[in-house]
Amino acid sequence: MTTTGDERPLGIFDSGIGGLTVLKEIVRQLPAENLLYLGDTARVPYGIRSPETVRRYAFQCTDFLLQRDIKLLVIACNTVSATSLGHIQEKISVPSIGVIEPGARAAVRATRNKRVGVIGTEATIKSSAYRKAITAIDGSMVVFGLACPLFVPLVEEGWTDGMIAKLTAERYLKDLKDEDADTLVLGCTHYPLLKGVIGEVMEGVALIDSAVETAKAVTAVLDELNLRNRSGAPGSQRYFVTDSPQKFSEVGSRVLQDPLQEIERVEI
Amino acid sequence: MTTTGDERPLGIFDSGIGGLTVLKEIVRQLPAENLLYLGDTARVPYGIRSPETVRRYAFQCTDFLLQRDIKLLVIACNTVSATSLGHIQEKISVPSIGVIEPGARAAVRATRNKRVGVIGTEATIKSSAYRKAITAIDGSMVVFGLACPLFVPLVEEGWTDGMIAKLTAERYLKDLKDEDADTLVLGCTHYPLLKGVIGEVMEGVALIDSAVETAKAVTAVLDELNLRNRSGAPGSQRYFVTDSPQKFSEVGSRVLQDPLQEIERVEI
Repeated sequence: MTTTGDERPLGIFDSGIGGLTVLKEIVRQLPAENLLYLGDTARVPYGIRSPETVRRYAFQCTDFLLQRDIKLLVIACNTVSATSLGHIQEKISVPSIGVIEPGARAAVRATRNKRVGVIGTEATIKSSAYRKAITAIDGSMVVFGLACPLFVPLVEEGWTDGMIAKLTAERYLKDLKDEDADTLVLGCTHYPLLKGVIGEVMEGVALIDSAVETAKAVTAVLDELNLRNRSGAPGSQRYFVTDSPQKFSEVGSRVLQDPLQEIERVEI
Repeated sequence: MTTTGDERPLGIFDSGIGGLTVLKEIVRQLPAENLLYLGDTARVPYGIRSPETVRRYAFQCTDFLLQRDIKLLVIACNTVSATSLGHIQEKISVPSIGVIEPGARAAVRATRNKRVGVIGTEATIKSSAYRKAITAIDGSMVVFGLACPLFVPLVEEGWTDGMIAKLTAERYLKDLKDEDADTLVLGCTHYPLLKGVIGEVMEGVALIDSAVETAKAVTAVLDELNLRNRSGAPGSQRYFVTDSPQKFSEVGSRVLQDPLQEIERVEI
């Protein structure tokens, strides 16, 4: 290892733009790291495909990033994390991190009454991935899952505050409030952008932002394995997409709340 | 031709459940007809795929229905109608009808000031298919297109009335109201279910329901070609899907506002 540390990039992928919330947190927590982001926008959404198909796509995304000499892989997609993380970890030699374990661990640390809510897409909730991860850490936890299908289109439209977002959050979260959970996992990479309205509706409940928790896990792994970039220069971000860069740029800029540059269309 | 007329079924397909609004209108207008409905739910949404891919999928759906000896094909999907209707008509011998022409013709008949609004998915609006169809009939028409991405998830969630639907409609349609269009085409097969709130927001504007117009066109073609079923028995409906029948049944029953039966999963 040189004094500049390990300058190789981190590779991050998602089926679309949701994983940009994870990228944003990694930039905030690890500003010196170079990042490659792959959004498989031609085949989004993964959440409605069979687990076998998702795994096949996930391996293609992984191969694409491995060819670019990454030092760590971040699976910034709940569906892929739920269905494919173990399979990928068995096959590749660079370390990899999904979004579910970090969120599950943070929820277990945060709850006082052992009653945890999880919101996500239908695919994530149906997979019970968070319930399994949380109860694997502590079998006495009670986990309530709830799918909120309108949250992703709201975020992609940029309507993350105002009355429509507020009323939608109230309508979805009403049942969850009755369950007396003291902790709520935002189990979809789009949802951190709705933290404001969700926090208003779920006042007094601890919100677990899986983007923040995943970035913390990335930091911890880089430190443990001594893989940090110590070159002193600010890190770069490059984006790859499998469909039109234009829509990715438009919607992604709303998600990141920052204009996106250096977007390249690729075949994988 | 026997006295029972032509008992062969009509074939209807869509990428998912949206086309059920067209089916429902056909049942209402033509209760004696037997209907086969194919929803390519494993590959929904078509609207985000390239035209070449949509055409390939559309031919597979068409072949599936032709193998079941249909007498007429209804393409109950705006994306397929916009990209593939001509290609399909060139290749097959049974008559076929898309959803765009009937809506465009009805809009031209309805408008007094020649200013027509069209709302639809991003893919439909970007394709300019309605603008082209309307101005092909009358070149002096002015057409305003507007994508309303949240309408489909609202309908699929069953939230078709109440404050959230109302506020969403107000927010989308505000700009369109300023354009002084006197006619609005609901250019997406999901949107007829939002006719109530859209009508409130666009008071005084004629709403063109492309499901109703398409069913009228089907009736006219059956009459012209003497293809009506005159057996006297009530028509049957059978549903085929390419992914899990369960979700199709849940969401489809909300769309049809009637429980769905006889759903079969198929490979196409």
